[in-house]
Amino acid sequence: MVNHYSSKLVEDVVNELSKLPGIGKRTAMRLALHLLKQEVSFSERLGSSIINMRNNIQFCKRCHNISDKEICEICNNPRRDEKLICIVEDIRDVMAIENTAQFKGLYHVLGGLISPMDGVSPLDLTIDKLIARINSENVEEIILALSATVEGDTTSFYIYKQLKDINLKISTIARGVAIGDEIEFADEITLGRSIIGRLPYETGI
Amino acid sequence: MVNHYSSKLVEDVVNELSKLPGIGKRTAMRLALHLLKQEVSFSERLGSSIINMRNNIQFCKRCHNISDKEICEICNNPRRDEKLICIVEDIRDVMAIENTAQFKGLYHVLGGLISPMDGVSPLDLTIDKLIARINSENVEEIILALSATVEGDTTSFYIYKQLKDINLKISTIARGVAIGDEIEFADEITLGRSIIGRLPYETGI
Repeated sequence: MVNHYSSKLVEDVVNELSKLPGIGKRTAMRLALHLLKQEVSFSERLGSSIINMRNNIQFCKRCHNISDKEICEICNNPRRDEKLICIVEDIRDVMAIENTAQFKGLYHVLGGLISPMDGVSPLDLTIDKLIARINSENVEEIILALSATVEGDTTSFYIYKQLKDINLKISTIARGVAIGDEIEFADEITLGRSIIGRLPYETGI
Repeated sequence: MVNHYSSKLVEDVVNELSKLPGIGKRTAMRLALHLLKQEVSFSERLGSSIINMRNNIQFCKRCHNISDKEICEICNNPRRDEKLICIVEDIRDVMAIENTAQFKGLYHVLGGLISPMDGVSPLDLTIDKLIARINSENVEEIILALSATVEGDTTSFYIYKQLKDINLKISTIARGVAIGDEIEFADEITLGRSIIGRLPYETGI
């Protein structure tokens, strides 16, 4: 494999880039050569944006979403419904739900899912902060929007157990046949869940 | 698609990363989140290695390979054979040939191949510098090691025409059935070339 770089400068970039997930030495080399073909300002912007992001990023003290300030824009928005909290695994889920434009409440970012296999326990997540938040804020409903995996279901159940004695509506996002999917190709568990979770026609369509 | 970043810092990194070839917005987002999960020093090293490389890279004044100095390590190595020059398209080819440990001469990096379709003319390459080099240095043989494509063959032929009246051995790398390949699956042009280029058994095996 590639190991004669003839430049320590290029070798350094290849080594650093190939530490990123999904980028091997060969791809890293291709990217380094691409950078060399671009203007100096291109590499300046890329390099400094990375350093700048990592040095200045904050996590919202309220919902743990990434933020440029102490409290993120969503939590700071007076038009959002503070009584409704959507619980998600990570910041990508916040973006995905924001893109639907269907949710007007606030979020709580767990920072992962409970996974004994990967050594992630409830203490590694922001579940204690969620409970503190529910106790101190005026929350009426939480929506569990975690992945439909063993880890997601475990985490949902753990949170449900912690909160079930509090006077709080706990819901979970609907599982069912995706829009555009054909019934005959839906897996049987999803199809079963979509029958159990059936809705009045006027609501469901 | 992803468009609610909740952080300008992250948005900047995603925008810059997704300008790289083969990296879309989604991959860029995944990489940005990965960086956020690592130590600050990780992003510092990645970012500064990129800036540092682009600001300080040089191209060897003799062979046009990338280099940290005016003259690259290969050209500066007194144990390399100065009478033999291998002509390659770009720096990746230098690495590939160096990795074989079969070549002890010097290189000349063209910086591309002649391609009228892409607007690359002989003047965009370092062919004039190659000719000046052959005229001023004591070169006995050049090896054309260009891709077996229309552009590669055109470039080889152009260089051959420029040099054929000089007292110089001009060779080209062997084309043939790759090691490990089965004869019945080799394409007919390659197989034909490997028959024309047949070698005495003792040399070819």
